[in-house]
Amino acid sequence: MELTAAEYSLIASTIRTLAMDAVQRANSGHPGMPMGCAEIAAVLWGSIINHDPADPRWVNRDRFVLSAGHGSMLLYAALHLAGYDITLDDIRQFRQLDSKTPGHPEYRHTPGVETTTGPLGQGFANAVGMALAARLLANEFNAAADPIIDHRVYALVSDGDLMEGISAEAASLAGHWGLGNIIFIYDDNGISIEGSTALAFSDDVRRRFEACHWHVQSVDGHDCVQIARAVRAAQAETGRPSLIIAKTAIAKGSPGKEGSEDSHGAPLGADEVKKTKINIGCDPDAEFCVPQAAYDIFARRREELATARRAWDERFSRALRPDERAKWDAFFSRPNIDALRAKLPAFKIGDSIATRSASGSVIESLFAALPNIVGGSADLAPSNKSFAKGHSETGRNAVGRNIHFGIREHAMGAIQNGIAYYGGFIPYSATFFVFMDYMRPPVRIAALAGLQAVYVFTHDSLFVGEDGPTHQPVEHLAAARAIPNLTTIRPADAEETREAWLAAIANTAGPTALALSRQNLPVLPRITPTGAADLHRGAYVIWEAGPDASVLMLASGSEVQLAIEAAEALRERSVSCRVISFPSWELFDRQDDAYRRAIIPTEQKNRVVIEAGRRMGWERYAGDSALYITMEGFGVSAPQNDLAKRFGLTRDSVVERVLGYLAR
Amino acid sequence: MELTAAEYSLIASTIRTLAMDAVQRANSGHPGMPMGCAEIAAVLWGSIINHDPADPRWVNRDRFVLSAGHGSMLLYAALHLAGYDITLDDIRQFRQLDSKTPGHPEYRHTPGVETTTGPLGQGFANAVGMALAARLLANEFNAAADPIIDHRVYALVSDGDLMEGISAEAASLAGHWGLGNIIFIYDDNGISIEGSTALAFSDDVRRRFEACHWHVQSVDGHDCVQIARAVRAAQAETGRPSLIIAKTAIAKGSPGKEGSEDSHGAPLGADEVKKTKINIGCDPDAEFCVPQAAYDIFARRREELATARRAWDERFSRALRPDERAKWDAFFSRPNIDALRAKLPAFKIGDSIATRSASGSVIESLFAALPNIVGGSADLAPSNKSFAKGHSETGRNAVGRNIHFGIREHAMGAIQNGIAYYGGFIPYSATFFVFMDYMRPPVRIAALAGLQAVYVFTHDSLFVGEDGPTHQPVEHLAAARAIPNLTTIRPADAEETREAWLAAIANTAGPTALALSRQNLPVLPRITPTGAADLHRGAYVIWEAGPDASVLMLASGSEVQLAIEAAEALRERSVSCRVISFPSWELFDRQDDAYRRAIIPTEQKNRVVIEAGRRMGWERYAGDSALYITMEGFGVSAPQNDLAKRFGLTRDSVVERVLGYLAR
Repeated sequence: MELTAAEYSLIASTIRTLAMDAVQRANSGHPGMPMGCAEIAAVLWGSIINHDPADPRWVNRDRFVLSAGHGSMLLYAALHLAGYDITLDDIRQFRQLDSKTPGHPEYRHTPGVETTTGPLGQGFANAVGMALAARLLANEFNAAADPIIDHRVYALVSDGDLMEGISAEAASLAGHWGLGNIIFIYDDNGISIEGSTALAFSDDVRRRFEACHWHVQSVDGHDCVQIARAVRAAQAETGRPSLIIAKTAIAKGSPGKEGSEDSHGAPLGADEVKKTKINIGCDPDAEFCVPQAAYDIFARRREELATARRAWDERFSRALRPDERAKWDAFFSRPNIDALRAKLPAFKIGDSIATRSASGSVIESLFAALPNIVGGSADLAPSNKSFAKGHSETGRNAVGRNIHFGIREHAMGAIQNGIAYYGGFIPYSATFFVFMDYMRPPVRIAALAGLQAVYVFTHDSLFVGEDGPTHQPVEHLAAARAIPNLTTIRPADAEETREAWLAAIANTAGPTALALSRQNLPVLPRITPTGAADLHRGAYVIWEAGPDASVLMLASGSEVQLAIEAAEALRERSVSCRVISFPSWELFDRQDDAYRRAIIPTEQKNRVVIEAGRRMGWERYAGDSALYITMEGFGVSAPQNDLAKRFGLTRDSVVERVLGYLAR
Repeated sequence: MELTAAEYSLIASTIRTLAMDAVQRANSGHPGMPMGCAEIAAVLWGSIINHDPADPRWVNRDRFVLSAGHGSMLLYAALHLAGYDITLDDIRQFRQLDSKTPGHPEYRHTPGVETTTGPLGQGFANAVGMALAARLLANEFNAAADPIIDHRVYALVSDGDLMEGISAEAASLAGHWGLGNIIFIYDDNGISIEGSTALAFSDDVRRRFEACHWHVQSVDGHDCVQIARAVRAAQAETGRPSLIIAKTAIAKGSPGKEGSEDSHGAPLGADEVKKTKINIGCDPDAEFCVPQAAYDIFARRREELATARRAWDERFSRALRPDERAKWDAFFSRPNIDALRAKLPAFKIGDSIATRSASGSVIESLFAALPNIVGGSADLAPSNKSFAKGHSETGRNAVGRNIHFGIREHAMGAIQNGIAYYGGFIPYSATFFVFMDYMRPPVRIAALAGLQAVYVFTHDSLFVGEDGPTHQPVEHLAAARAIPNLTTIRPADAEETREAWLAAIANTAGPTALALSRQNLPVLPRITPTGAADLHRGAYVIWEAGPDASVLMLASGSEVQLAIEAAEALRERSVSCRVISFPSWELFDRQDDAYRRAIIPTEQKNRVVIEAGRRMGWERYAGDSALYITMEGFGVSAPQNDLAKRFGLTRDSVVERVLGYLAR
């Protein structure tokens, strides 16, 4: 629906006053951006975005991502006007405890908010992930003449987003993939926190995006007709992503602060708020004021949208054959884990297989079993074993289930988040464990937003070997375990690897990191009747010399076999050990006390931790008097066996240290 | 010196055979890149790079950064030929334990290696940092007619480097700053690990760099005359950084593997090595063969370089007035910490000041006291308090001691590393603590390479407040402490903040992270005679109710005042506490047993940890039976006082929990 200039202007003024008032009342927040982007929001929410306020999770809605998350009041004001369940009272509670309107937008917290944003650049890449997901879903279900997925992905991005390297990574991929369903508007206000962006930013943004195959337009960001025309042109461009560079003034309308960095992250001040209201033709004494005429515009817009939604419902009801409908349902429901296990490989005791390779076999089977698993590597697929042969690929102007991310871990993680936000898919990504550092920001947000995402982190220790300390993780297990709501699992062998993948598929409330070995490991025998399925309990007794073990050995990953070897040798020295395979702290923490005490009896204080990583945090499970056979410094470049000797991770060294410990 | 085509070709063949042989013997490594870049190396080391093999730390040497660190054999071969202390036996020991030739280049480990590289994109940004440092040093010491710093910074960068977002950030800054002393050569071989770069990379690299104000040329990377001509043209361009796009074939010369991804990260195979040697005119049966003629070329080159070095020595000896010479010496020597303390602010007990603000005052004084401290923020200077007023600034075509990094934390960290590699400076960087995640890769490398770098991480906890969980660090103290050789310090008040800065200045063996409060904190009274200087011991008794405390309270940062308040309230309930200010685990771990036992007596098992972050790792100091008042999940958006109540970080809540704990 097209609006008149006066109607756009009314919406923009309303957004400006709501933003000013909310920040002023909270005495904290960012008024400048919502005021500067009020016309952009008026056009997008008044005329462009196709959505259903009564059903915020409608699958074919346009997505809108506020990458510049600090401008959250822009989004809350727009969602309020558009008819989402956000009241003026909610807006009055901006930034207060337990309100629907936190400082930065939070996914699952506020209806209509599609992403958790704030850390700059994330939303940009999330939106690329959403656009990829839309194309993937369309690939699976769109009949040629009767598409059920044909929406677009809009984002509002800032100078800060464009300075962050992740936006360069994500822009490069979006252009490479030809994601013509992307329409990003760049709020080019020339202001950052330290002052003019000219202090640190002189990129020719048009050339930069054209170099990545984007369609680029420029507009006056306060001219609604220009904005709307550019968006329509961007909609018409379906082969390339679109960027609209909108020249704006931050805090537009404020007589004293328009164009100034002072308006970025602090209230304007009560006086300036009044002056601004007068300046833009609003009642200076009215607070949180929404003219009825503004509500009326959006009531008309909702009617129009409702008609469109009904048309889509009808299209959807006749679009899918029964078999397609079954596949659709598989996308949008949770798989049965036991049924899934039956479709995954089993491994033979005694075989020697790296857990990364076992993961590769599992991935191949998962692609066959689950139509909605998608993912790939940051250019390490042959090493990460993360490519599913015989399935489609995402590449130049093409989308498919195997995604080639290039050497862009940061965008990979955030695009993965975008796919997870989108819904319907189980996305995974893969790189070396040490390069988790490159994608830590999106991992954190996946944990915070409760997104299902699986990380295939291979080459998980010192035993990377010759590549040396730049490639050998030492602190990464600790650093991963430190993130709340990230489940970290380090399987001991191929059998545990299958179970770790199942745990990751089952974990829909947050991300799961799999730490996998480069080197071959034996498939282990187990004393448990349930076999490797005990992985789901986080820790279990995998081997013991007898019922009265005098030493508990706690180990994860490749060190479990080492612990068993040492325990066998210690048995010959009359020392009776229990070896506990301990792949996941988070899974173990979810067990009841009785189980935990059965595995780690309180009274048995002789405990040994063996892990090729820092000990930090193991004290919680092993206690004050334990022996720690861990890595406290960086590794060195050398073949694996030389490293094991140098760092005391051989059977003989463990035996010797345990004997010394018992003699203490 | 210009060489003939035959001479260049001889050098290139020698590099190819050394690289092939070393990787084959190690049975691991990356032959493709050194073989593909052999002509580039022949030109750079044969004719271009101005250095002194007898004095690898000569201040005015050209820097060469191998950003594509996996091609380490290229560098080792070139350094061997150029006359550094790397023998053919060292090259035979490629990737072996304790050799001089590890899998990826390691700073301080091998003479002539300027940077630790391998994680892609880092070297690119390190080189930008070196070029900035060179300009900064030139600013300080170059008289117009008689410059003592006039060298250049060369780097060899790969597809992988250019895909990583950090290279976009660093390129943007290098162009903005007008660093005409940069000459980067891009090894455009069209191959990455998964196959053709066309799988994931279609940027128009020329346009991309031109959009950031670079001077861009294209050459055939196997044509030495073209390469040399382009480098000379780049040298002539002093106002803009230069990129030379060199089209190469990976594994050039190998009949079976040239142009194939198979040559990237695995030996060619003994047969293919022989075939390649025949193909490039070398003896197929000679291994690690360097023709005498190749040595002769470099002997001539060394004579030429020695003459240039003597000329520089003479220039240097007459360039500086005595006062300038004293300043020069200040750049290249370690400051006396006690003398420095006298020049830094003291804070009055009872005053209320955020530790970020105290840090700001300290930085202002440090700029006056130390001519070689330089740094800045990723666009948060007003919040980080990291700008030193009245001092010069780095900006558009200008360099100065205050650096505006823009919103580019990752490049900031790696540029900081580049300044540290360069020498002479103490570089700091600043951002919110939660955004440490964006710069974790360079922090890790600073720790691994032993670089002095100071991180000003402000807004260090939940008490960020209204900005909400995206901006509230919870796991970041744990994640920082997990990195070996990173010293993390969280001062309790302004006085400790000054001492934390002094500890950072004193720590020349690795990086130091300062975790600083957003909120105001009282300047605390102390029972120690040495006052806040006890910070250097990592932990000390700041308050106690009496000589026989029945509870030890361990706290850091803003929670120390909370601990004291609670301890005072507990005294009224007849519970006698000792409050231990515990700003740094790493500093405490360096103390002797006697000191550590004096602070935390073994026999006193009633221990309470209070920290607004995850407890992970505190068990090492507080033990099995301690009470942990910490943050185990994410925070929420709300004012500070509401958060304190919600998460139990108020005096009354602490008192209640301690009483409950004692009654257990």
